[in-house]
Amino acid sequence: MKRVYILGAGATKVGEHWDKSLRELAVEALLSAIKDAGIDKREVEALYVGNMMSGELQGQEHLGSLIATWSGMAGIPAFKVEAACASGGAAVHQAFLAVASGAYDCVAVVGVEKMTDALPSDVTAALLTAEDQEYTVFVGATFVALNAMVYRYYLSKYGVKQEHVAQFAVHCHRMAVANPYAQFRREVKLEDVMSSPLIADPIRLLECAPTGDGAAALVLCDEEYLKRNPRDELVEIAASAAATDIFSVHERKDLSTVASFRRAAECALKRAKVEPERIDVLEAHDAFTILGVLTLEELGFAPRGEGWRLVVEGQLAPGGKIPTNTMGGLKARGHPVGATGVYQVFDLFTQLTERAGSNQVDNAEIGFAGNFGGVAGTTVVHLLKRVR
Amino acid sequence: MKRVYILGAGATKVGEHWDKSLRELAVEALLSAIKDAGIDKREVEALYVGNMMSGELQGQEHLGSLIATWSGMAGIPAFKVEAACASGGAAVHQAFLAVASGAYDCVAVVGVEKMTDALPSDVTAALLTAEDQEYTVFVGATFVALNAMVYRYYLSKYGVKQEHVAQFAVHCHRMAVANPYAQFRREVKLEDVMSSPLIADPIRLLECAPTGDGAAALVLCDEEYLKRNPRDELVEIAASAAATDIFSVHERKDLSTVASFRRAAECALKRAKVEPERIDVLEAHDAFTILGVLTLEELGFAPRGEGWRLVVEGQLAPGGKIPTNTMGGLKARGHPVGATGVYQVFDLFTQLTERAGSNQVDNAEIGFAGNFGGVAGTTVVHLLKRVR
Repeated sequence: MKRVYILGAGATKVGEHWDKSLRELAVEALLSAIKDAGIDKREVEALYVGNMMSGELQGQEHLGSLIATWSGMAGIPAFKVEAACASGGAAVHQAFLAVASGAYDCVAVVGVEKMTDALPSDVTAALLTAEDQEYTVFVGATFVALNAMVYRYYLSKYGVKQEHVAQFAVHCHRMAVANPYAQFRREVKLEDVMSSPLIADPIRLLECAPTGDGAAALVLCDEEYLKRNPRDELVEIAASAAATDIFSVHERKDLSTVASFRRAAECALKRAKVEPERIDVLEAHDAFTILGVLTLEELGFAPRGEGWRLVVEGQLAPGGKIPTNTMGGLKARGHPVGATGVYQVFDLFTQLTERAGSNQVDNAEIGFAGNFGGVAGTTVVHLLKRVR
Repeated sequence: MKRVYILGAGATKVGEHWDKSLRELAVEALLSAIKDAGIDKREVEALYVGNMMSGELQGQEHLGSLIATWSGMAGIPAFKVEAACASGGAAVHQAFLAVASGAYDCVAVVGVEKMTDALPSDVTAALLTAEDQEYTVFVGATFVALNAMVYRYYLSKYGVKQEHVAQFAVHCHRMAVANPYAQFRREVKLEDVMSSPLIADPIRLLECAPTGDGAAALVLCDEEYLKRNPRDELVEIAASAAATDIFSVHERKDLSTVASFRRAAECALKRAKVEPERIDVLEAHDAFTILGVLTLEELGFAPRGEGWRLVVEGQLAPGGKIPTNTMGGLKARGHPVGATGVYQVFDLFTQLTERAGSNQVDNAEIGFAGNFGGVAGTTVVHLLKRVR
């Protein structure tokens, strides 16, 4: 396999973009990544688009060709990759493989989702396409309800107080204040979280990642390309790995672990020859607070049932034991679903290139992102490494 | 890049499968390909799913994880790839790159679509997600209407009689009679085609590929895998290439050529170091008869405006100048859109492994497939080579 590097990254702010269409968001992020890479867009040889719900919400498929055209790159190979909320990570994975294979020297990837110009009931339905339409959705389960089962089981199995898990949201909001791309640049207090409306018992409104619009993009290249366009400092994708779990939550043996994440993470860490303790910045898929805590436990940063301690002790902030979601995570940076996996890598790239401002993690060398699709029916992980 | 081989292939019959769900079709094709490959399904390391409209028609996304689970392969990385009607070809392309990169030794790909248990108006709407929702669909154009513009322009530019182009459908129906996987195993006469209802002037009903359900699957592997599981005879994917064109038909300069196909085909032929005249079997994307004729012209088998002569002269049958759609093509084998690109490779594999029965092309060594998405806003091509 060829080694794969990130040449540049770009994104739109996550938010309610009433004045921008899906394609405009994608083009904005893509051209911004190309500009950041310092290359001409004619050098991009292929395009990967991560998106989950444009078919359902915009009546628009075939995003590869659409976005290639609207970015002024018609002609190049272009594809959409989908794996529910892990669509962004899955698109990065395919772009990574495309470069690693030697088929292309320079490839762009953009994750995009536009969720706010649809009826909330349509968004709920579109999210549910990630779960089993015939067995889960049919009986009336919503996505929050499925995650609530996981949450309830965790609290009960380990005798954990919800306040301790919910603190994850407080951390993310604090981190987002300094992130210009974040949807919610304001702090929330634990009392705010715990007194926010109950969505699906025990999940409170402020424990859920918000609905939003956004796009994030990367330009990837191989070593041949770098020889022609040398850089002093670089970020390598040292590993890109994915795994699935039994599709539906109700058929799994254990709700308190995330098997697909564990599998993918083990594979990536092994390939990159990196121990988890060497991770300097972590991007956790906190669509709901409980998933952030489970991510910490799966990587071994805390024993089972005790991941919440890291949150409560403030170990997730820069300077802590494992700086996590330092740009706000899904909870506060935002979660435009098909874009999230790319935003995670964008945020890590920001840290590894020392552009994180007041949220900068000192000497950040290794970044790790875990992107879940469905109730982690799919996980895609990326391990990034700063190379000097 | 590593060399990539097809170890086995499988498919369901294309048709109206009222008794089978989308996932059942996919699992049937996938397990049949694995059986044909003569391997254990635990050896499959990743899964690629080609599908266009399951979100719109079945309310089901996240097909990678779903189909991995229902095939008894939960755990492996699994993704959906979408590029409108070229979704199948795009999935084969990603599976090819995944093996070529060295990340996986053995990968499965399945293309699947279920179109017949939806309202015809919903299917029409789902097909239109391949074109521009904001500019093309908005003004009321249907997919047939857009292709009718291409057809009309061709007839008028070259002074060609429609009967000569429409003959392509007659050829495909004749080929499908001997194909057990074909949707329409019966001949039609040119009079039948020309007197069938007008759908969008000049396109007649029997010039359109039908709506249908089906799934086709392949197992791909690299040379390391073959060393452990040697074979006497093999089919190599000697090249897999893709290209896009300006997204919307109305913005293109010339309606009588297929730029994305030409670009992708040139790239594939160059990589495989093969001249078009060496192609023994061709799979053309005849969603409408005109597209079959244009495919012949783009590959140089006839001058511009004269591709229809090959059809009329019977040169597309086995033994002719360029045996084309020898298993019935989209017109008669059927066109379950997201599966079509995989069916094309399945049909070529059938020929190159000498399993085509009375449709067998003697000494077929090189097969070529062109899979269009939208009005060829995307094309994915595959060049297959028999290796002894």
